[in-house]
Amino acid sequence: MKKEDFLSATCSVTRALLVIGGKWSLRVIDEIGKEKKRYGELKKGIPQISEKMLIQELKLLTQNGILERKSYHEVPPRVEYSLTQLGLQTLPILDQIKVFGDDLLKTSANKM
Amino acid sequence: MKKEDFLSATCSVTRALLVIGGKWSLRVIDEIGKEKKRYGELKKGIPQISEKMLIQELKLLTQNGILERKSYHEVPPRVEYSLTQLGLQTLPILDQIKVFGDDLLKTSANKM
Repeated sequence: MKKEDFLSATCSVTRALLVIGGKWSLRVIDEIGKEKKRYGELKKGIPQISEKMLIQELKLLTQNGILERKSYHEVPPRVEYSLTQLGLQTLPILDQIKVFGDDLLKTSANKM
Repeated sequence: MKKEDFLSATCSVTRALLVIGGKWSLRVIDEIGKEKKRYGELKKGIPQISEKMLIQELKLLTQNGILERKSYHEVPPRVEYSLTQLGLQTLPILDQIKVFGDDLLKTSANKM
């Protein structure tokens, strides 16, 4: 679907998913949470994600106002990511996803 | 990421996203809600989705235990989709996504 279709979307679910619906978006947001994280820490925390996808996801989430990217002019240079105010508003979504995910984990544990 | 990586994932967010993380999963679940819906109604309710993607999403959500597919042996044949108990457990996630989406819609409306 073209971005402008999404942007013109009056449906709040469609609109939200434009910003947080990427395959790794919520996983990256969850990994940062209320802290400041560097690229290396995120890569270690999400072993399944490729370098390319993580870089792309960080860029998109920053462009969409979910993440703040802060670079410190040091040697070697240091870059940290944290949630913006808008980003913090996604945490209640993650709370509910964790409740659902925990139920899934319990159900599959009982099947073993 | 291979499915077995996901399945072995002990992280509840990763596990949940395996089931509801598809591009259209949450949008389809939202469209069905607490009702019974037919394919044609869903296609009309989500104009941005292609036929192929809707068929694929319905199949995946049914396989993952989120949707129940009921076919009535009538002429012409009738098929209805509804949320299972597990599917109903995703509605609190959608409630939070709508809160976030509404905020996004308000923010962009103010920018116009």
